Amino acid sequence: MAASPPVRDVPPAGALNAWRAAREAAGCPARLPPVRVKVEDAAGLVTAEPVWATRSSPPFDAAAMDGVAVRAAGTAGASETTPIRLRPDAYDMVDTGDPMPDGRDAVVMREHVRYCGKAAELRAAVPPYQHVRSIGEDVSAGELLLPAGHRLRATDVAAAAAAGATHLLVRRRPVVVILPTGEEVLPIGEPTGAGEITDTNSLMLATQAREAGCEARCLPVEPDDPAGLASAVSAAVSGCDLLIVVAGSSAGRGDYTARVVAELGMLAVHGVAIRPGHPVVLGVVGRTPVLGAPGYPVSAALAFDIFAGPLLAGLAGAAPRHRPRATARLGRELASPPGLDDWVRVRLALVGGTMMATPLPRGAGTLTSLVRADALLTVPAGLAGYQRGEQVEVELLRGIDEISRTIVAMGSHDLALDLAASALRAEDPLVTLATSSVGSLGGLQALRDGLCHIAGSHLLDPATGEYTLPHLDRIMPGAGLRVVRLAHREQGLIVAAGNPSGLTGIEDLTRPGMRYINRQRGAGTRVLLDHELGKRGISPGAVGGYAREEPTHLAVAAAVAAGRGDAGLGIMAAARAFGLDFVPVTREPYDLVVTASVMDSPLLAPLWALLRSARFQAAVTELGGYTTTEMGRCIR
Amino acid sequence: MAASPPVRDVPPAGALNAWRAAREAAGCPARLPPVRVKVEDAAGLVTAEPVWATRSSPPFDAAAMDGVAVRAAGTAGASETTPIRLRPDAYDMVDTGDPMPDGRDAVVMREHVRYCGKAAELRAAVPPYQHVRSIGEDVSAGELLLPAGHRLRATDVAAAAAAGATHLLVRRRPVVVILPTGEEVLPIGEPTGAGEITDTNSLMLATQAREAGCEARCLPVEPDDPAGLASAVSAAVSGCDLLIVVAGSSAGRGDYTARVVAELGMLAVHGVAIRPGHPVVLGVVGRTPVLGAPGYPVSAALAFDIFAGPLLAGLAGAAPRHRPRATARLGRELASPPGLDDWVRVRLALVGGTMMATPLPRGAGTLTSLVRADALLTVPAGLAGYQRGEQVEVELLRGIDEISRTIVAMGSHDLALDLAASALRAEDPLVTLATSSVGSLGGLQALRDGLCHIAGSHLLDPATGEYTLPHLDRIMPGAGLRVVRLAHREQGLIVAAGNPSGLTGIEDLTRPGMRYINRQRGAGTRVLLDHELGKRGISPGAVGGYAREEPTHLAVAAAVAAGRGDAGLGIMAAARAFGLDFVPVTREPYDLVVTASVMDSPLLAPLWALLRSARFQAAVTELGGYTTTEMGRCIR
Repeated sequence: MAASPPVRDVPPAGALNAWRAAREAAGCPARLPPVRVKVEDAAGLVTAEPVWATRSSPPFDAAAMDGVAVRAAGTAGASETTPIRLRPDAYDMVDTGDPMPDGRDAVVMREHVRYCGKAAELRAAVPPYQHVRSIGEDVSAGELLLPAGHRLRATDVAAAAAAGATHLLVRRRPVVVILPTGEEVLPIGEPTGAGEITDTNSLMLATQAREAGCEARCLPVEPDDPAGLASAVSAAVSGCDLLIVVAGSSAGRGDYTARVVAELGMLAVHGVAIRPGHPVVLGVVGRTPVLGAPGYPVSAALAFDIFAGPLLAGLAGAAPRHRPRATARLGRELASPPGLDDWVRVRLALVGGTMMATPLPRGAGTLTSLVRADALLTVPAGLAGYQRGEQVEVELLRGIDEISRTIVAMGSHDLALDLAASALRAEDPLVTLATSSVGSLGGLQALRDGLCHIAGSHLLDPATGEYTLPHLDRIMPGAGLRVVRLAHREQGLIVAAGNPSGLTGIEDLTRPGMRYINRQRGAGTRVLLDHELGKRGISPGAVGGYAREEPTHLAVAAAVAAGRGDAGLGIMAAARAFGLDFVPVTREPYDLVVTASVMDSPLLAPLWALLRSARFQAAVTELGGYTTTEMGRCIR
Repeated sequence: MAASPPVRDVPPAGALNAWRAAREAAGCPARLPPVRVKVEDAAGLVTAEPVWATRSSPPFDAAAMDGVAVRAAGTAGASETTPIRLRPDAYDMVDTGDPMPDGRDAVVMREHVRYCGKAAELRAAVPPYQHVRSIGEDVSAGELLLPAGHRLRATDVAAAAAAGATHLLVRRRPVVVILPTGEEVLPIGEPTGAGEITDTNSLMLATQAREAGCEARCLPVEPDDPAGLASAVSAAVSGCDLLIVVAGSSAGRGDYTARVVAELGMLAVHGVAIRPGHPVVLGVVGRTPVLGAPGYPVSAALAFDIFAGPLLAGLAGAAPRHRPRATARLGRELASPPGLDDWVRVRLALVGGTMMATPLPRGAGTLTSLVRADALLTVPAGLAGYQRGEQVEVELLRGIDEISRTIVAMGSHDLALDLAASALRAEDPLVTLATSSVGSLGGLQALRDGLCHIAGSHLLDPATGEYTLPHLDRIMPGAGLRVVRLAHREQGLIVAAGNPSGLTGIEDLTRPGMRYINRQRGAGTRVLLDHELGKRGISPGAVGGYAREEPTHLAVAAAVAAGRGDAGLGIMAAARAFGLDFVPVTREPYDLVVTASVMDSPLLAPLWALLRSARFQAAVTELGGYTTTEMGRCIR
């Protein structure tokens, strides 16, 4: 096998070409072998030969109406004034679908026939073939019904059966095997210790393969050992049409996939100019294509889409499935590194008739960004990004109808809002409330930029001691905003269970060795901390850990629970979710800010109704630290 | 059970409401019971409760780069001019994904570290948490990951597993049972006699149900007997969540579904104001919803979409799947009966940058119109249709990408063109050639109206004896059209095998008792017949059966093969496809007419290449009656 050196850091199209060339050089089959299956079992598979009709449908001339079948020539001259009467041997009663009796060539509708004894009286002449469905009206024997390379749908298999097919020649399903690697990677269900992670990539890739119409199988996790990996790859390739080797999360010392593929077969590509997903490996071992997928879940998911998808469709001889596209407007500037195709997950929101796109967190490890994304936006390698307001084309991950009916809330993360999202959906599957945690200030700016319907805010104005309202006139002067109270929440220090350091309040944050967990700039809780420090004359620099930022209350609580921090300001419900202790500091209102036009739109009606329901208020109180007496009240 | 009289001929929304009310009155469950399944088995199912993260992902602070983990405070003051050296106990080598060692809070990238013996030299200070992925960066324990009522995709199950789920509470799959009726209906694979048809509706409906995420089962065909049908329905309802009773093709005497449902349970709706699909029955037997679907296949398919789809999604607590939509321009006026929602199957073609829609045959029996349709257009009950040029919204049945890459040919039906469609797809799954049989004149008019890329024509000009070319200047004067020769074809009389009547030519069509099968007005073969009759001084009225029209050569041959006609003018290949005899009359050219701009577009390049290939020319010659010496030649 001629081993040319692998191409590196090429654009996706070049990588696909290099992989194809390697497959051809290695003698990989271009198409899977055809198999003959019963037409009943063929749905979802791809035709391996054209389907020609072997009989006509309908297979005979048939009545297209209920009525009487006649010979058209025998009705000549019939009219309102000169009705004619047909004797019983000159007509037959027929129902829709009945074959036309011999010697009859037209049907008179039941409503237009009167009976005089056994004779049928007609008051109009009928032309030949009136209300007759001709043999072959739908399809004639010998006609092309479906081409080769067609993925069979419900109507296709039914039409094939109607045209005489009992069996169809189709491509067998591609078999995809997934081989996870990395000693720190454990199967789902096994408890993970420090430094260990659960193997979720195998499940994700196998599910993607099944969604693409393949059979998929996952092998046990292989440790990062070149010899062991080589023998696992050698054993796996003989039993599949595509082997996906998933890297451990470690992209450094443990990255043996490329080496093993080069040793056992042909390494075509090592590294593709995409983000996320750069460390992709493409090659061939034996006659089986091998895809080395990065360990970061978003990278792995995109590597499947970009590289496995087209290969698997090609093996079946079908066109790859494409996601529907839509256009959207960017509410913010989007910067992107040049030289890489940048795949950005975006949230969409239909605000005031315009579809707006907001980028979600871009890390390759943030799988939830893909779960929560409405669409993918690709910034091509040649662009450094997009300007604010630019119209972009996106690939939809959810239906546009569903997206158009989604309430989008951005701002401070709040557990009661999470609960509302779930309660709304449980009541009506058509209602979705999607939340993005961007901090209170981020939410108000997103509302200003038309990116969302609701800004969730608990932003203190230190000058007045008021929350949220004073900021509105600054950020969106004259916008006529409305404000609905969600709840009051207890804010305080989230500390380890049993409060082992015996913290009593903000003052104690200056203790030596303190590992404080802060919130990001623009977060209401960050503003609150600065305000509380300022009141006490404490400088931020005096708080150990002030520079460490987390994006949500729960992330702060998670860090404290893991022992990586001593304290962080946050809501009581977050402390409670992790079984941590809580040192109260203050009580603050959390409000929902909306524009006047959106306030009264049908889109938001289910949310307002929910907030006024006693059952929901009780559920929020259950979370701990919430007061719901003003829930749903319009305070401005 | 309170039995209010059924509503009749209501619009679909009213029918859905009446059915829902009947289900509520009968105590049908609104949702299917939840079941707990392993997260590995949950893909495609719908969550029955919200999924909250029970652990954070990543579960620990981790290095986000390959390099050395340090304490940020220990790097203060490092610069190009004042590098600092860290002793081995002051740093740890880490790879991406490794947990941060105790006491380290930042990572320096490998590329920025030099080693002096065992000491690591840094030339820049680093801030705390540089290149550190925080615990919970993706999702924090306690956070809402997925709401209830969410259909699980690959990324969802992976994210749920990463957030600690080993099992998920989901709705079980709905079970749909299909009960076909009618004594003329036979299972697939059984030979059909006169008046009998194959049961393709059961396969279609079961496949539609599976495509909607259900389990589906088909019962044996039940004859049209009220007592037998009643006991079959009674037995079936206990084992499913939806029973679909499919009428035989006969909508008259045999329509017992409504009566049986009314007797056994509650008949909510009998007849819906839609076309096709009017005779829909909606009711409840026991606690199981029953849908009576019409026997015409297009009606049955639409009845599933409109009525079963929303019910089944509701049972799973999920939003019904919606097809993507697009806008298209109508190239022709479209009339529609008032008072009915009219579901029109349309062919789409991207011609000169505009997406054009052409209605396909509208009969409820023409299942191939649904197979060949690119989209569905609904003309609402309140409208009498659309004007030519109007912009309409359609529901896509194929991907818009695929549609945009489809070559659309309209005009006279030709078997060589069918063969080309299949050969193009077999070579490249991305290339589709879609043909519509509308006759030669219809094709040229469609080209004029911008509805297609190619008009297939063999239209004789009786005045000059020339084909196609003289018509172009009449239909599209000054359009600068190009013409590519497909082939010459033998036209003649298609007669029964062995030519039992001993027909020798056009003259014999005036024989008494002749049952001629004609082609529709505008068909090239119709023009040819009229020309041949005229040459001989024969009036059309002298030909028995002149008024009987069929849309294609194959349909003519099918009628002759079935013994329902004695002769029809058509191509030799059609006679051969049915094993019939052929009496040659003339040889004619079949040409492809295109606009100059489309001629040289990349879209058509694969077709022109195919026409010039010797292998394809040989395959066409094989069909019989074709001469391919000029195939692919540009004759204008």
